[in-house]
Parts: sequence; structure tokens; C-alpha cells
Amino acid sequence: MARQPRSEITRRNIINAAVDLFDEVGYASTNLGDIITRVDVTKGALYHHFDSKESLAVAIIEEAVRKMFAAYKLSSASSPALETLIQGTLVAAELASTDKLARTGGHLLVLFAKFNELAAGHYRSWIAETVDQIQKAQVEGDVRADLDPDSVGHFVVGALLGVHVFSTCLEDGSDIVTRVLKAWELLLPTLVPEASVPFFGQFIARQASRHLNASAT
Amino acid sequence: MARQPRSEITRRNIINAAVDLFDEVGYASTNLGDIITRVDVTKGALYHHFDSKESLAVAIIEEAVRKMFAAYKLSSASSPALETLIQGTLVAAELASTDKLARTGGHLLVLFAKFNELAAGHYRSWIAETVDQIQKAQVEGDVRADLDPDSVGHFVVGALLGVHVFSTCLEDGSDIVTRVLKAWELLLPTLVPEASVPFFGQFIARQASRHLNASAT
Repeated sequence: MARQPRSEITRRNIINAAVDLFDEVGYASTNLGDIITRVDVTKGALYHHFDSKESLAVAIIEEAVRKMFAAYKLSSASSPALETLIQGTLVAAELASTDKLARTGGHLLVLFAKFNELAAGHYRSWIAETVDQIQKAQVEGDVRADLDPDSVGHFVVGALLGVHVFSTCLEDGSDIVTRVLKAWELLLPTLVPEASVPFFGQFIARQASRHLNASAT
Repeated sequence: MARQPRSEITRRNIINAAVDLFDEVGYASTNLGDIITRVDVTKGALYHHFDSKESLAVAIIEEAVRKMFAAYKLSSASSPALETLIQGTLVAAELASTDKLARTGGHLLVLFAKFNELAAGHYRSWIAETVDQIQKAQVEGDVRADLDPDSVGHFVVGALLGVHVFSTCLEDGSDIVTRVLKAWELLLPTLVPEASVPFFGQFIARQASRHLNASAT
């Protein structure tokens, strides 16, 4: 493996320390001085990489979103769209429950999306991607044809965002996979034609045994 | 009307300026100096009321939650529990779309609930109150008996939180009532026994004409 240049290692250490501090005491209560103390770098070295606390937060959001989307893509092979969507959200939830950077990036995104167009763009992409999957699933007969895909996309992504916020705030992110599974169970009767509810109920139960075992190890 | 003591007026001006700044540039990017400049008070006068930016945020959260719960109670007369719950969320959404303090307090709550036990407590109360209503609605036959009220309560409140975040981040809070109405429409097939879906569909349509006209005026 190629050796990382020293400057890359410093940048990585700064990001990791910022994630730890944002996770422990929150973004608002952390200042750049705390990060400098924790990483043991000079102020100059920190400013070489990040000119403000906000630029650090944005870097964490970008990396978290990249990881989340990569996880989501893993599962998007050639399965039907609704199965792909359910699996994708579970893989992303698993990542958020085990990876502090991904979880902290998700929390920072809620904070920044109102004030930073780049951050808001991530929500818009996530919703657009979901609306696409819902439309494909309608063509495949797995989502009721009378539903408006745009409303459904906003609602499903919003519900999963609520899951993320409550799991992070109330249970430190430990139960996010369980909450996402419950959310899908409750979404089924709304989304899926009656005849397909039993199949998707079983599909979710099988996903539960895979993903809950995976997070327990 | 009794005259407000001068100190009360100062406190109110500080809170209003903080709400404006948190709404315009965000909590993290506002410092106490910006608030002092905007209100034109001395540093001493500000510290007399609030010893930190966090204590100001907590005061805004408390006031927003009080307003939201008061709005919610207004509608909780003697109607059936599910009707009360739907109406309560619409009155609260209307408040959030028209009242900047309520909306900003809601946004601060997402930020603080992970780091402040008082703030997390508001989410817990909101969920507990909703679980109670769902249980009553089950007894009244308006919510399917086979659903676990605890899971439903977490899911419904989480979905409404997602609605609040997306409306605030993507549309500046202007469409929150419309989004809450759509959320309830999509929740019906999951929550309500099949025979009651048409009635609740009409109930939501009637609420839509009341609440959307009210916010438009």
C-alpha cells in the first residue's frame, strides 16, 4: 500500500477529532481550539486544511454522504426497484449505526441544509433518487399505481430522516436498523398493492434477520 | 393592560433578535456580539438575562414547545382520539408556518436533543402523548387493533419531524401544512381499518380546506 503523505494524515486526524467532538458535545459547543488541542497540530496546520469550523463540517457531510451513497449503490444490482430501495435504506442504516462519521455527518446535514445550498442539495438528490425508484416500482407493479410518486418520495425520505434523528437523539444511534425495519413494515400497507403485502412482509422479515445479525456482530 | 417592566421588554427584544439571527444565518454562525448589536443593549444587560448562547436557545425551545402544545390542546376537546391527533398536528403545523419563533424553536430542538436532556425530554413527551392518542383511537376502533401503539407513535412523530425538517430546509417552512396533510393521507391505509378509510379521507379533505385557507390569509 502506498504511504499516505504526511499532510493527508494530518487532514484525516483533524476530521476524526472533529467528528469525535461534534458527537460528544455538539457542533455549536466545539471550537477550533478544542480540535487543535485534541489533534495536537498547530493553528497554521489546521487552517492549511480548513479555513473555518463550517468548512470542516461541510467536509464531514460530503464524506458521510459519499459513504452513504456508496453503501446504497452496493445493493442496487438488478433486483426490482422496491426491494432495492428497502435494501439500500437498510445498508445505509447499518452504516449509520456503526460508523460515527456517517452518523455525525447525517446530524450535521440537518443543521446545515437550511443555510447551505450544497447541503440542501443532498436532501434534494436523496429525494429525487427515491422518487425514481418509486416510479420504477410502480411500473413493476410493486407500488400502487394511484399514488403520486413525488409525494411518496418526500414522505418516505422524511420518515427515514425522522428515524435517524430519533435514533441519534434518543438512543445514540444504536437502534437505527430496527427503527428502519419498523418504518418499512408500517409503510407497506400504504405503498404496496394488497396482493403483494404478504411477500414484502416476508422480504422485510428476511432482511431483519440478515441486518440485525450483522449489526450484532 | 398592565405595562411590562423594562427588563421584560429587554428580554423579549433579545429573544426576538436571536430568533431572527438563528433563522437568517443559523445558530452556529450567530454569536452573542451579533445579538447585542442588533438589539442595541449592553453586554451586561444581555448577560443579566442569558449567561450563554445555549441558554438563549433553550429559552427559545421552551417557548416554542409551550406554544406548540397550547395550539395542540386547543383542538383536543371531546372529539375521537384520531381526529384530535390529526387536528392537533395541523394546528401545530399552521403555527410553525406562520410563527418564526415556533419554527426556529423546532429547528433548534433537532440540534439540541442529542446534547441536552431537557430538549430530548420534549421529543419523549411528544411521542408519549401520541402513543396515548393511538391507544385511545384503538379502543375507539379508528386505529387497527393489531398495530403496536409504541411503534406507531414513534413512526408518526418521526414522519412529522421529517416533514418539519424538509419544509424548513427546502421551502422555508411555507408548505408545512400541505406536507402534514399529505403525510396523513399516506398514513391512513396503514393506521385505519379499511372500512374507515373513506371517512378519514373526507375528514382530511375538510381539514385541508380549513387549514390551507387559514394559512393563505
